[in-house]
Amino acid sequence: MDMIDLINKKKYGQKLTNEEISFIIKGYTKGIIPDYQMSSFLMAVYFNGMDATESTSLAMAMRDSGEVLDLKDIKGTKVDKHSTGGVGDKVSLVLAPLVAYLGAKLAKMSGRGLGHTGGTIDKLESIPGFKVELPLNQFKDQVNQIGCAIVGQSGDIAPADKKIYALRDVTATVDSMPLIASSIMSKKLASGADAIVLDVKVGSGAFMKTKEDAMSLSRLMVDIGKQAGKQVTAILTSMEEPLGHKIGNALEVYESIETLEGHGPKDLTEVVSVITGHLLKAAGIVESFEAGYELSKTTLAEGKAVDKFYEFVGAQGGDVAFIKNKKNLLGNTKRHEIVATSSGYLEKVDALNFGIAAMKLGAGRMTKEDKIDLFVGLDLKKKIGDEVKIGEVICILHHQDKGLKDAIELIEKSYVIGSEKRELKLIEETIV
Amino acid sequence: MDMIDLINKKKYGQKLTNEEISFIIKGYTKGIIPDYQMSSFLMAVYFNGMDATESTSLAMAMRDSGEVLDLKDIKGTKVDKHSTGGVGDKVSLVLAPLVAYLGAKLAKMSGRGLGHTGGTIDKLESIPGFKVELPLNQFKDQVNQIGCAIVGQSGDIAPADKKIYALRDVTATVDSMPLIASSIMSKKLASGADAIVLDVKVGSGAFMKTKEDAMSLSRLMVDIGKQAGKQVTAILTSMEEPLGHKIGNALEVYESIETLEGHGPKDLTEVVSVITGHLLKAAGIVESFEAGYELSKTTLAEGKAVDKFYEFVGAQGGDVAFIKNKKNLLGNTKRHEIVATSSGYLEKVDALNFGIAAMKLGAGRMTKEDKIDLFVGLDLKKKIGDEVKIGEVICILHHQDKGLKDAIELIEKSYVIGSEKRELKLIEETIV
Repeated sequence: MDMIDLINKKKYGQKLTNEEISFIIKGYTKGIIPDYQMSSFLMAVYFNGMDATESTSLAMAMRDSGEVLDLKDIKGTKVDKHSTGGVGDKVSLVLAPLVAYLGAKLAKMSGRGLGHTGGTIDKLESIPGFKVELPLNQFKDQVNQIGCAIVGQSGDIAPADKKIYALRDVTATVDSMPLIASSIMSKKLASGADAIVLDVKVGSGAFMKTKEDAMSLSRLMVDIGKQAGKQVTAILTSMEEPLGHKIGNALEVYESIETLEGHGPKDLTEVVSVITGHLLKAAGIVESFEAGYELSKTTLAEGKAVDKFYEFVGAQGGDVAFIKNKKNLLGNTKRHEIVATSSGYLEKVDALNFGIAAMKLGAGRMTKEDKIDLFVGLDLKKKIGDEVKIGEVICILHHQDKGLKDAIELIEKSYVIGSEKRELKLIEETIV
Repeated sequence: MDMIDLINKKKYGQKLTNEEISFIIKGYTKGIIPDYQMSSFLMAVYFNGMDATESTSLAMAMRDSGEVLDLKDIKGTKVDKHSTGGVGDKVSLVLAPLVAYLGAKLAKMSGRGLGHTGGTIDKLESIPGFKVELPLNQFKDQVNQIGCAIVGQSGDIAPADKKIYALRDVTATVDSMPLIASSIMSKKLASGADAIVLDVKVGSGAFMKTKEDAMSLSRLMVDIGKQAGKQVTAILTSMEEPLGHKIGNALEVYESIETLEGHGPKDLTEVVSVITGHLLKAAGIVESFEAGYELSKTTLAEGKAVDKFYEFVGAQGGDVAFIKNKKNLLGNTKRHEIVATSSGYLEKVDALNFGIAAMKLGAGRMTKEDKIDLFVGLDLKKKIGDEVKIGEVICILHHQDKGLKDAIELIEKSYVIGSEKRELKLIEETIV
């Protein structure tokens, strides 16, 4: 096989075979195929796409470039979820102890945040002592014993994807559906779960800005997962406003505990319960999605799973006493209040701006090398559809002066207060 | 300016400004923009194209990456021609002394051959002593004194094009009209001529296989030339069969002399005269294309320009006595005859196969490093439309054993003898 022929094949709109895709990924990972050939190939893929079969080959070739976790020592159906990344998305923190409490096994590898979306691993690190790296045996033992574990993604998972993503980043080939889908799925397939729910965010605060794009991506990822032998469901979740009220690392842990205690934000509770419904059904714990969804709502409302969260934190070395006194998670940051400049209903916000504002305050990284401040962030006092009175506090910034001016400016222009009481549809579609 | 933004701009189908294209070419030539970004950009150009204005910016930016010949010391209109490359294309060898004899000034830089089309420089090197490298002053003096000179293309002409072409070659981005057009034109614009005829070959033996592609390329090159302030005409010439009868380096010099003596092949005489017609008109030597065309035909028929050929060869150090005894150019190669296996008319040949066969015999290079045999080649005894009798010799191979078996096999399958007497249209279109 010859790389030039394969680039031409894709350029002329033909389909590549599994062997051809495997040749490209192996060759590139080993450094036999140079960057300049890979980047022209990626641009040809941007224009001519890849169908589900090709995308599956690509995801599986990238999966096979590194370690594939063997979770068969863990009894029962292993479940996992993945979010394409949204502002204030703390679903994993609530979901892990919840599904574990309800009898499923969640062995999760998470990433760190880059840009305006925070990473689950960063959030967990705001708990003193919490270890985000565990030896594989300990990781599996913990899941067997308490039902869940969350660790940082190992460098050995899908190294081909890592190398290709770095190249896409500097060659304007990031925004290609088959490349995005196979990148996400290569890591999910390597992480060993049997059933996966993909939470695809759509709207101004998400990577997928339109419903059409989010649908295509979901369809493709579900098809890849199925072709690779997994149970996969995707849900399309609105990211027209941040999820919940709090954005920032420790702040999101705080809100997750509130949710597990039974008084969390409605939207966060809803998204967690929809995902839980699908996972419990896939794990054979409930007969139907509806039953799993209702079980989740009841369990959260009754605060039954919060102890599982403490158990999980403790198992990974985290200071349980620290988080049981929740206000520790609010830190000793300064506060700055943003007030409404008119009365009416909150009609629209710019979700992306909240993410960027939190990043400016220090909650997120602009480059991989940036150190983050675990306690800064935002607390949204109003959500879309809420009534707002002039002079009322609509947002509180938790800050340490850094980035404050930029953040205030961004947030002040992010609110649209109007006369219409709007209802957001949170879960837009379910793709199976 | 940022290269990623510019790749995205082209990827999303937007037009690039002159400044943006200049930024890309300068950055790439200096090594600031890496190969992997350039190759994804080139692939985006393959898909979204470039209009005439962008292509002109590209051609001019590549021209300005190196030396631009200043020919103003040469009196009168400087004319030049360029062929996109065909099998048996020896037009420059006849044209240069012809237009010089008729009063125009032709200062030509030519390339070496690669693949199935021979290079003018290689052909001239089959004349003992002929120097293909001259200092610039001597080159200009010669054109002033005798009217023509042909030298090898200097390494300083359009180095950006050279670097980009090498990258296109290994990234499957060769077959893009704006990239082909601006590559050719960057070198023509650097070579200092005022009036240029582009001979765009179309058919099985040419890079442009369809008339549609050849038309697009011609239109674009003429537009680039005009936007850059040159008088440019393109003609579309059929390459359904080789031009003339002889293919090979010394063999083509032989046939060029025959043509200058007045008994050359009809098709070669025709193409030379059409180009001469346009050039003489552009140089103000004749009132109309038709007058120039007729003047060329008469001059060739009367053998008046052959002495100018000897003068030109002598001026560049070539052994005039050697070529005046034409049979020296036939060398002492072995001969192999191919005979017709049926009777009728020659309906069709595979022109590309003749080029490849000549290359296999050693007349051309498969890689830049290959050494060529100046005397091997082919002599086609029949052209399309000719009557053929079974057992009659249709082609003679001039060989030194090397590649003979492959060449025979290629040629035997290249002839289609049928019952219809076909007339080829040689000059398909003229684009001004």
